[in-house]
Amino acid sequence: MSWAEWLAEQRCSRERAGLQRTLRPRSASEDVVDLASNDYLGLSTHPVVRAAASDAAMAWGAGSGASRLVSGTTTLHGELEAELAGFTGRDSALVLSTGYHANLSAVTALADRDALIVSDAHVHASLIDAARLSRARIEVVAHNDVDAVRSALAQAGGRRAIVLTESVYSVLGDAAPLPELAEVCAEHDALLLVDEAHGLGVVGDGGRGLVAGLGEAPQVVMTATLSKSLGAMGGAVLGSDALIDHLINRARPFIYDTALAPAPTAAARAALHLLRDRPDLPQQVHRRASQLADRLRVARSAGAVLSVPMPSPQVALAAQAAAREAGIRIGCFRPPSVPDGVSRLRITTQAGITDDQWARAVEQLARVVEQHRGTP
Amino acid sequence: MSWAEWLAEQRCSRERAGLQRTLRPRSASEDVVDLASNDYLGLSTHPVVRAAASDAAMAWGAGSGASRLVSGTTTLHGELEAELAGFTGRDSALVLSTGYHANLSAVTALADRDALIVSDAHVHASLIDAARLSRARIEVVAHNDVDAVRSALAQAGGRRAIVLTESVYSVLGDAAPLPELAEVCAEHDALLLVDEAHGLGVVGDGGRGLVAGLGEAPQVVMTATLSKSLGAMGGAVLGSDALIDHLINRARPFIYDTALAPAPTAAARAALHLLRDRPDLPQQVHRRASQLADRLRVARSAGAVLSVPMPSPQVALAAQAAAREAGIRIGCFRPPSVPDGVSRLRITTQAGITDDQWARAVEQLARVVEQHRGTP
Repeated sequence: MSWAEWLAEQRCSRERAGLQRTLRPRSASEDVVDLASNDYLGLSTHPVVRAAASDAAMAWGAGSGASRLVSGTTTLHGELEAELAGFTGRDSALVLSTGYHANLSAVTALADRDALIVSDAHVHASLIDAARLSRARIEVVAHNDVDAVRSALAQAGGRRAIVLTESVYSVLGDAAPLPELAEVCAEHDALLLVDEAHGLGVVGDGGRGLVAGLGEAPQVVMTATLSKSLGAMGGAVLGSDALIDHLINRARPFIYDTALAPAPTAAARAALHLLRDRPDLPQQVHRRASQLADRLRVARSAGAVLSVPMPSPQVALAAQAAAREAGIRIGCFRPPSVPDGVSRLRITTQAGITDDQWARAVEQLARVVEQHRGTP
Repeated sequence: MSWAEWLAEQRCSRERAGLQRTLRPRSASEDVVDLASNDYLGLSTHPVVRAAASDAAMAWGAGSGASRLVSGTTTLHGELEAELAGFTGRDSALVLSTGYHANLSAVTALADRDALIVSDAHVHASLIDAARLSRARIEVVAHNDVDAVRSALAQAGGRRAIVLTESVYSVLGDAAPLPELAEVCAEHDALLLVDEAHGLGVVGDGGRGLVAGLGEAPQVVMTATLSKSLGAMGGAVLGSDALIDHLINRARPFIYDTALAPAPTAAARAALHLLRDRPDLPQQVHRRASQLADRLRVARSAGAVLSVPMPSPQVALAAQAAAREAGIRIGCFRPPSVPDGVSRLRITTQAGITDDQWARAVEQLARVVEQHRGTP
């Protein structure tokens, strides 16, 4: 089959399955309540965060120019790293260009053919890709099943083992049993990698994430994004000094990548300062998430994400369009972006809109969900 | 072996080999001529590019908030894509968060277990990782060896085949024989993926890269970065409409990643406008690169990068430190960042400094290189 034929056939099969996607650009001035983004605290558009990004571009330039090992590392990166580590109670942090780079870096620098990766079935695509890329032996275990993790580790057979989990899962919004997982990992001298992409800024004491609640936990490797609660762009790996030193030297997606640009680096730092000063922001997210879950009659979320199952990809799309008509943008997750094949609406709560906007959005979403839930 | 022991052992073996790396943050105000970065045209700090980044952060916010398929796509992304495609003579473009994401996306969305990847031995780490991740059959061929590519394609045995190359290679600074490779690929209905990371803005008519010189070339997939000549951050894939549609739907490092932030997106666009209006910028890079190559008695570069072999990693480091003493930052590539195991200085020429600064730098570098070249 030629490449042209193959591309055409791939598109046909997506269209038949109702899974064809297109990009819909938004403008800077559109009048919509955005409950689809992961900007949970509304900090991406906070005046202080905007100004930090803007000022950094003027002071440092638009880009970092090179890999962090060449000339891309600035004092901005160093300050952000020290403050991220301090806020989450880790020894050290390393900032990368994306959350994807953070997960790829942590896993591939640690795991090789002699390692065992035990992965929760629901982890993010970047962790799945990272595990594949590492060439380690991979055991996928049922979601949040601590006994399955224990069994898999018991059969490591001398391999260095690393367990992959998220603190709060992106699609279903549920949390991992971190204390139990940490205990099992400590018993087997395994590392526990916890992706806090949807935890940092939302859960734990003052939005410090769930890893912070484990105490020092030297066997824990934490990854995070700067593009969600922190409203900027980029990712980070946090852990022991020895871990970070190892990543600087061995993580290919760190070594062979241009450093995160000055504007998002400074913005993430400004957002972190705001989060440190405003523990009411994550509290507001929780209050609103619980209120909306009750109103929609779906399970409460551990974090900011509400998952509303829909009968089919087509109905999910129709519900999303109906919400958009009512001035609210919500997410619509269809295969292959869902861990269980069930299409769903994904609604994120956020602290950055007014009480009035929020109250109106809740009522409109209740109407839309009710109308579409029973549709075949 | 425990994780702590393994990390300690890894560090010891790096130190024994003289390969331990550390990060050295730079300040915004340091007084140095930077001939290490890939900001070849000096556009990262151009007033117009800085202002574009700064203004975009104020107008749009510090981050994009979500995947481009959710709510991360803005009209900024769309405009940049149309202009990148127009400038390089391609049908369509897709902007991603990093060049790494661009290469991972293009390769893994196209190649699967039923594909054959024929890869030049010198391609960038991101293409090597992409090929591994794709699970395709991989044939690595000698650097710039068109006959070897032809032989490998002749043995594809019905697999969809894709050939990986760069237009200008990052470390050695040499160019690929693109017209010959394109012809061989056309004969075998193979795709030719050309990474223009170090070509765009530097080589080809007005800095359009080497792919532009191939004409329409529907079998060519081009990737590029926005973090080098364009002075910002991010990456892009360019090619046919069908290719870009396929990536939007299937490329995991595109789907599962927060969109490139507004500031670098706008900065890359402003830089592209400058490049379009200033064909003298890439010409200046070439003049300076040739002058420096002659002065240092090394091979002239196809692009902006001069490669100066050194007798050992330790001597390369010493030469780099001596240049730094003289106020010039240059790169030092040691294993594993070099394709052939030879440590070297990597000096990039750029158009953003004055003739006086450049002339002084040339003389100082000549002195440093002469002093260290013969050192055992």
